[in-house]
Amino acid sequence: MSEKFVIIVAGGVGSRMNSTLPKQFHLLGNLPVLMHTIRRFAQADLGLRIVVVLSAGMQTFWEELCVKHHFTENHHVVAGGSTRFQSVRNGLNYIQENFTSEQLNQAKIAVHDGARPLVSSTLIQNLFAAANELQAVIPAVQSTNSIRIGNKERSEITDRDHVWQVQTPQVFAAHLLFEGYKQEEDRSFTDDASVVEKMGNIVRILEGDHFNLKITHPEDLDIAQVYLDKLFT
Amino acid sequence: MSEKFVIIVAGGVGSRMNSTLPKQFHLLGNLPVLMHTIRRFAQADLGLRIVVVLSAGMQTFWEELCVKHHFTENHHVVAGGSTRFQSVRNGLNYIQENFTSEQLNQAKIAVHDGARPLVSSTLIQNLFAAANELQAVIPAVQSTNSIRIGNKERSEITDRDHVWQVQTPQVFAAHLLFEGYKQEEDRSFTDDASVVEKMGNIVRILEGDHFNLKITHPEDLDIAQVYLDKLFT
Repeated sequence: MSEKFVIIVAGGVGSRMNSTLPKQFHLLGNLPVLMHTIRRFAQADLGLRIVVVLSAGMQTFWEELCVKHHFTENHHVVAGGSTRFQSVRNGLNYIQENFTSEQLNQAKIAVHDGARPLVSSTLIQNLFAAANELQAVIPAVQSTNSIRIGNKERSEITDRDHVWQVQTPQVFAAHLLFEGYKQEEDRSFTDDASVVEKMGNIVRILEGDHFNLKITHPEDLDIAQVYLDKLFT
Repeated sequence: MSEKFVIIVAGGVGSRMNSTLPKQFHLLGNLPVLMHTIRRFAQADLGLRIVVVLSAGMQTFWEELCVKHHFTENHHVVAGGSTRFQSVRNGLNYIQENFTSEQLNQAKIAVHDGARPLVSSTLIQNLFAAANELQAVIPAVQSTNSIRIGNKERSEITDRDHVWQVQTPQVFAAHLLFEGYKQEEDRSFTDDASVVEKMGNIVRILEGDHFNLKITHPEDLDIAQVYLDKLFT
């Protein structure tokens, strides 16, 4: 059986949250956001190996949080880098150094934002299933608003059915990520799909989920709470 | 002083709300969504004349709702058509038939979705102020997600700073709307900006507001409640 991994990226500093505490550690219900996120992948029941990338300065804090909240979901912590790209690369390095090439030969690796605590088991399962065939699969949703392309002075209306808001987890055949992350970091790399695509690979979209919110602004925590109550309790 | 109007379009049937009651009549807090929306414009303190477009079959129901909720904000109800385009046109016809060309000469008209009950006074005021100079001004926000353009099989990452999710109210010099809505209806008309733009006019974007949610899915009502508690109470 091929191995399945998820790298949960939680090294960010949350500059838009009006708070010194990074957003993945804020409480959602009774539990820090990141614990919800980890639990989603544990509960997807795919035998996933969970790798959590945390900035080096937060690791002791995280251990204390886990004790405080009696959080026992199995996961391995890796130190992050100074950018998201470097953090994902550190996660990939950990995987390459700790598993045999036989284990990694047919492996699939998901990369997921720590600040998306509401991803459903169904979406995770569907993405991994699709990645068996398609090699590089990402979830995305369309907008219910009209969409314009351009700047404030000049813009053009476009067909909103062609515009996709990309989410995570993004799931790839392991070798695509290993190769992609050997590239030099580029500011066009806004997610893992863009890294893999730069190598000439085709990335397929799977219908995402409007609930799969990324906690960015402070009020997003309140919205996430609404969703959490509706979906997971 | 030039007249200012807002046409609030609330003729939709809410097919995505899993409910036979159109979404603009659902309760948000203690009041139907549409009453919040009307109140936002009344409270913007611009002396706005408020025109509400309702499907013909809902007008008696609306009158009863107003009595029930002791809702006394001044507004004029106009019967909607079978599409949003026709509903806006009916609202414009009412304005042209009931005001003199002198009153309409320098007039500004906003068009707003009835299902956006959380638009702020500041945004409304800024849009009307900008419309004095720019003639056609719309609010829009950028995405915090990566954006791809294409279909599920083939898509390309694009610079998200160039992708705008368009909101309402959209504010125009009155004559631009009167002329625009003389055109034949076209399925590329997804909002009023697209109608005005088709005539060769330039539409300018003003920074919108993430709170200015359009209630589309059932869970949006819960989110709107979170925002309402935060912003307007």
